[in-house]
Amino acid sequence: MMEEKKAVVLLSGGLDSTTLLAMARQEGFVLYGLTFRYGQRHLHELEAARRVADYFQVREHRVVDIDLRAFGGSALTADIEVPKGKGTAGSAEIPVTYVPARNTIFLSYALAWAEVLGCGDIFIGVNAVDYSGYPDCRPEFVAAFEKLANLAVKAAVEGKITVSIRAPLMFLSKGEIIRAGLKLGVDYGLTHTCYDPAPGGLACGRCDSCLLRKKGFDEAGLTDPIAYAPLPGT
Amino acid sequence: MMEEKKAVVLLSGGLDSTTLLAMARQEGFVLYGLTFRYGQRHLHELEAARRVADYFQVREHRVVDIDLRAFGGSALTADIEVPKGKGTAGSAEIPVTYVPARNTIFLSYALAWAEVLGCGDIFIGVNAVDYSGYPDCRPEFVAAFEKLANLAVKAAVEGKITVSIRAPLMFLSKGEIIRAGLKLGVDYGLTHTCYDPAPGGLACGRCDSCLLRKKGFDEAGLTDPIAYAPLPGT
Repeated sequence: MMEEKKAVVLLSGGLDSTTLLAMARQEGFVLYGLTFRYGQRHLHELEAARRVADYFQVREHRVVDIDLRAFGGSALTADIEVPKGKGTAGSAEIPVTYVPARNTIFLSYALAWAEVLGCGDIFIGVNAVDYSGYPDCRPEFVAAFEKLANLAVKAAVEGKITVSIRAPLMFLSKGEIIRAGLKLGVDYGLTHTCYDPAPGGLACGRCDSCLLRKKGFDEAGLTDPIAYAPLPGT
Repeated sequence: MMEEKKAVVLLSGGLDSTTLLAMARQEGFVLYGLTFRYGQRHLHELEAARRVADYFQVREHRVVDIDLRAFGGSALTADIEVPKGKGTAGSAEIPVTYVPARNTIFLSYALAWAEVLGCGDIFIGVNAVDYSGYPDCRPEFVAAFEKLANLAVKAAVEGKITVSIRAPLMFLSKGEIIRAGLKLGVDYGLTHTCYDPAPGGLACGRCDSCLLRKKGFDEAGLTDPIAYAPLPGT
């Protein structure tokens, strides 16, 4: 009997992490989806993560509560207004939607679970092309975490696992991510992207995250299957 | 007016982190104590952390809930028996009291708070001499986390802070730690060390953690001010 290959996949329910899950499945991994409830102002993300986890039949889907609101410092977890229509994506400025140390914290939990599962592969959907300028989405951050992880946990130090932080979306444009996902059977109608949805959960169409998503579908020459809230004045 | 120096200090309420807090105070830092409620089987640690934070008049003491029980894998957070009288400290074997990725997770949260506070100094009471063999207590782990941290957060990338993971206990024996703390005014009667206290909170005197503590007071030629549960058969 061949030994199972397991992987922990960080799953937000967004377009990127859903594509990531499809890629990990394509590689033959048994999937363990990890989602965080971290004081986001919108819980639509969590519902999307559950839909996506069901769709891809992950073996386990854990939703872990982490209290990033305890420290504040971000428009996503505190009472700071999410910027609209500014298109900060790609600019040199790091936007207010940045959450302090978020991916460091997410990967630390993923590492703990991976060690308990006895696996070293951890998938994260970070991207250094069409990204919002977050420092913890860069390849040097991922490489540094991988190095740390192999020093940090017992199973790695004892040679039972080798931690590999897998970031296959790192150098893909949003359009390339979408095309890759469609080839792997992703239904993007299940995903949720918006930072600041309208009542009822409709995507605003104007935050950084929505703008990037729209740009991706435009690039791919495709129509986004999700509905957007009407723009003001239309 | 001189600018305030702030530091985040990881505070468990044990002997080491209490000494650490005294050392940070001695260096002139304004203290921000960070304690985790992580599914320990005993909450006496948290009470000790509160006493110690009060005693040293930290500016803020945050207790953050983190759910390490979600993954299991440790005698400290799951239903695995804490070993007694085995004295695994100093042996090559990593004991069952190891918690997967614990210090990685703790430092990640400390990093988030430090960034929000605008400071780079983070104190952690890890020790590579009289320790229990945990991989995330070694100097190479601390160095790797520091490197990661300076790549991970906006304030460091923008040059506003330089993250420095301070581990001043790293190369001290338990006896040296206790002597250093006494010089700095530590009252070790406030601290809590035991992994598996008796009903009422008395230290068991037999777990790894108690054995190390006793050894430290012996080395220092001092009497431990805390009370211990009577040993079985005595």
